[in-house]
Amino acid sequence: MSDPAPGLRPSYVLTLSCPNRPGIVAAISQALFELGGDIAGAQQFDERESRIFFMRVVFSVPAGGVERAMLGQALAALAARFDMQWSLRESLRPTRTVIMVSRFDHCLVDLLYRWRIGELAIAPVAIIANHPRETYAHIDLDGIPFHYLPVTAATKEAQEARMAEIVHGTGAELVVLARYMQILSDSMSAWLAGRCINIHHSFLPGFKGAKPYHQAFARGVKLIGATAHFVTPDLDEGPIIEQDVERITHADTPDDLIRKGRDIERRVLARAVRYFTECRVIPNGRKTIVFNP
Amino acid sequence: MSDPAPGLRPSYVLTLSCPNRPGIVAAISQALFELGGDIAGAQQFDERESRIFFMRVVFSVPAGGVERAMLGQALAALAARFDMQWSLRESLRPTRTVIMVSRFDHCLVDLLYRWRIGELAIAPVAIIANHPRETYAHIDLDGIPFHYLPVTAATKEAQEARMAEIVHGTGAELVVLARYMQILSDSMSAWLAGRCINIHHSFLPGFKGAKPYHQAFARGVKLIGATAHFVTPDLDEGPIIEQDVERITHADTPDDLIRKGRDIERRVLARAVRYFTECRVIPNGRKTIVFNP
Amino acid sequence: MSDPAPGLRPSYVLTLSCPNRPGIVAAISQALFELGGDIAGAQQFDERESRIFFMRVVFSVPAGGVERAMLGQALAALAARFDMQWSLRESLRPTRTVIMVSRFDHCLVDLLYRWRIGELAIAPVAIIANHPRETYAHIDLDGIPFHYLPVTAATKEAQEARMAEIVHGTGAELVVLARYMQILSDSMSAWLAGRCINIHHSFLPGFKGAKPYHQAFARGVKLIGATAHFVTPDLDEGPIIEQDVERITHADTPDDLIRKGRDIERRVLARAVRYFTECRVIPNGRKTIVFNP
Amino acid sequence: MSDPAPGLRPSYVLTLSCPNRPGIVAAISQALFELGGDIAGAQQFDERESRIFFMRVVFSVPAGGVERAMLGQALAALAARFDMQWSLRESLRPTRTVIMVSRFDHCLVDLLYRWRIGELAIAPVAIIANHPRETYAHIDLDGIPFHYLPVTAATKEAQEARMAEIVHGTGAELVVLARYMQILSDSMSAWLAGRCINIHHSFLPGFKGAKPYHQAFARGVKLIGATAHFVTPDLDEGPIIEQDVERITHADTPDDLIRKGRDIERRVLARAVRYFTECRVIPNGRKTIVFNP
Repeated sequence: MSDPAPGLRPSYVLTLSCPNRPGIVAAISQALFELGGDIAGAQQFDERESRIFFMRVVFSVPAGGVERAMLGQALAALAARFDMQWSLRESLRPTRTVIMVSRFDHCLVDLLYRWRIGELAIAPVAIIANHPRETYAHIDLDGIPFHYLPVTAATKEAQEARMAEIVHGTGAELVVLARYMQILSDSMSAWLAGRCINIHHSFLPGFKGAKPYHQAFARGVKLIGATAHFVTPDLDEGPIIEQDVERITHADTPDDLIRKGRDIERRVLARAVRYFTECRVIPNGRKTIVFNP
Repeated sequence: MSDPAPGLRPSYVLTLSCPNRPGIVAAISQALFELGGDIAGAQQFDERESRIFFMRVVFSVPAGGVERAMLGQALAALAARFDMQWSLRESLRPTRTVIMVSRFDHCLVDLLYRWRIGELAIAPVAIIANHPRETYAHIDLDGIPFHYLPVTAATKEAQEARMAEIVHGTGAELVVLARYMQILSDSMSAWLAGRCINIHHSFLPGFKGAKPYHQAFARGVKLIGATAHFVTPDLDEGPIIEQDVERITHADTPDDLIRKGRDIERRVLARAVRYFTECRVIPNGRKTIVFNP
Repeated sequence: MSDPAPGLRPSYVLTLSCPNRPGIVAAISQALFELGGDIAGAQQFDERESRIFFMRVVFSVPAGGVERAMLGQALAALAARFDMQWSLRESLRPTRTVIMVSRFDHCLVDLLYRWRIGELAIAPVAIIANHPRETYAHIDLDGIPFHYLPVTAATKEAQEARMAEIVHGTGAELVVLARYMQILSDSMSAWLAGRCINIHHSFLPGFKGAKPYHQAFARGVKLIGATAHFVTPDLDEGPIIEQDVERITHADTPDDLIRKGRDIERRVLARAVRYFTECRVIPNGRKTIVFNP
Repeated sequence: MSDPAPGLRPSYVLTLSCPNRPGIVAAISQALFELGGDIAGAQQFDERESRIFFMRVVFSVPAGGVERAMLGQALAALAARFDMQWSLRESLRPTRTVIMVSRFDHCLVDLLYRWRIGELAIAPVAIIANHPRETYAHIDLDGIPFHYLPVTAATKEAQEARMAEIVHGTGAELVVLARYMQILSDSMSAWLAGRCINIHHSFLPGFKGAKPYHQAFARGVKLIGATAHFVTPDLDEGPIIEQDVERITHADTPDDLIRKGRDIERRVLARAVRYFTECRVIPNGRKTIVFNP
């Protein structure tokens, strides 16, 4: 679906889900039409088992046209009628994002580069690392606040409280675990539900747990992969957003797997973050809807 | 988009295109709703340059509900209002298909297998070959009429007339050139516009013309591909529906390329035919819209 | 590596493994040179952990040159010196193959097609099915003996004895489980070790056990795959020969996964069988060496 | 093929080509064995048309063993006997590399990152840009000399003379055109033959010339790609080292193609540079041999 070209007209992305029944599309498109909205693209999905209907609509309103508040009012009325969960977002406003990282910085570097050249519509509001600033000496953080929060069993609770403060204080909409190797507590995971994306260095559900590339080497698979997923208290079981793989051979050492894996990880994570910023991802129980471009 | 599960309720696919302006989606979804239609999936595309709007809607109506004729009337009224090209198709009715083939039968065999196991919603109404029936001795044609129409410069016009008779007489909706190696005349190509799919054994626009695998070998490319496209009088320039590639190395001989190519050709052609039968492909000038599943 | 063009000169593939130490390559290439052998291609792999050296050599000898028996003698002498496992095979002789199948015949049909057009250097010496011949009514078996061996708990031992007789009696070098859905007994698996390839309809080690596509659907993965592996008594844990994947989306139903899976299964199995017939696969404990073309 | 683990023992990569005839492998492996060499991996290719034989051998000699000069002497003797082109390189010494860049810096940033973390065995000895240092303000060049050499029709000859000085003065073994958008003169291209790699932002031979992504958009292809090739005076016709592709749809704008293209370009170029540094690439007329890992 093509999004509207950046222009002067305010553009929105509406995402919604509700029990399926006839007339939803008609009601929404009619309401938007009456408010002066011009639908540039729409995607929908009818989950057969649960009979839940999911929809994403990109639309614009004329400059000087209906205010956001009025849009909200109209949508609230529809929501009441159709028992609808919904979210409305200005499509050109970057997503306020906290990036968390450990020693390996390839995903961090990649995300920052994509942000810098305008490819990824994030606004990085904080970087949280369990390694000190010197670890990332070669990276130009460009003024993004950097927080060194080392974690031990003893300090975990306190440090997570500080993380939560940062997330809250910055108004972050998204937390990206960009190869952040500490496991978040259940309560932290639950608090961040639906807005925290992790990159796992395996093709889940294969090779859960520690050292997945070494596991893959030991098992002798012929493809390795990476998985971007929402973080949940149930480790390595969060809803999968994106996955990809690369071919390996018997001659690849664990170090080769780690090297090839870096490339997969950074492109899988970048895609997942992109889908999130474009409101293409809707959690659906253990799974996700991804309205691909 | 999920299509409705096969059931007793008549299901339809509506495809349309028209100049873009606000209100199209609302008008269509409202009309379908009023006729008792339940939209199971919809996809749309707004071509920015031409300002043409394309849409595909899958919907069902209750058993015993509105008749097809009434649906047609309602759509005709909308078409007049929005200057709309449209097509309505029962989604469960197989596409009447003529398959044309030359000596290499891997695509023919593949299409027939997918048809036999119910994977591909075609109804093969004729096979046309410029080689005799014995060439395909191992294939169980299962009663599909086989027409041996050898072509020479002298007989081309007459044989194309017979092809046209077969297409016309069988009510074929689709003609598939499944490695049919004769070039259709301009008038035949024009007559079949938008309903004739060819599989080209190269990754177009590279390696047009004869012996593409030998060309690829000579050039030393590292990937080869195949292209399914609509046939037009402009040879190898028809709108592309689907393409795919496989990796090759310096050690692959032209014969290796031909072997790997067979696999690419048959899966690319099968996908293109599938997209056509599901009304996912809409020609758009030199290009196509493909509303991917 | 390029294999020699088919010609009148006898061509061989030598595969070997032995504890690594300096001088192996020199000794082998010198021995072959002295016997008049012309090396067309060679591949080797030095397994670092076990310090085992693996090698595959394709060579030809002049027509009327050294006999196979003398080659064997020379290699036996080298084997004694280097503590070497080895195997010598005429590269143009097709591999005598038993294909076993259950109800779904897409892999069987695919293997037979590739054999018929000369793409796959197998000689199918028997087909064993636990469904009767009528199940495969549309397939031209071209005189390949068909054995209907239905299996129940009560008859399993007796039927496996008959399978073993068929394998033995036909001189089969390879048994292919082409979606054969009965689990072989431990003793049968052990007896077929290193010469029985199974296609598993999942991207192992994910989704072991029954109904892998339904498992994949339930988990919400974004890619599905298939795995060709040697059969071992340890179910779904045999050495992996080849794997591949395809992308799926939230909109794909279990039936869509099964359909996409068929394409992956048949190409993965065909590749694995091809590698086997070309002596490219060497089991290495839980893993395999695959000297890719 | 597995290269030797970095250790104290001097390791070498020998690459060679010569007219094919029996006994080459035996002679080389025997010579290396007699000098105390331990072959860790070898790959060979027999070009059937030209009857040229290509080989790559990775071997190590014991610490304190034979000197490089003596190795050279032995190889020179073999070269005379077999009419052999050859090259011997210490496998652990990084390749002295000049990187040239224009405004788009994604390939430069990527190469420098891979170098910094030790993934790519290059030693960047100079960066040459036709844009000033400020253009790359966010990049930490880490002391790599930066040369601003803007090029106009009038200054081209003089600037190329300076480039040549830099290449010569730094002892560069490799020049990488990392999206350097100026066309090198024929004489410069010829002078750099076999040691200058360009990344072309199309899947050659499709879409030669300017603005390939716009060409791809106009043609409506379903996959776009990038090509790393050796630079020759014949523009866009140099021997191809590596290519890759990504899927696009009708909904992708030229800007989307450019974005997706950046990812393809950087991974294709990084692979090509890696292959070069590991002596895996041997030019072969219009084509290349790439002894893949």
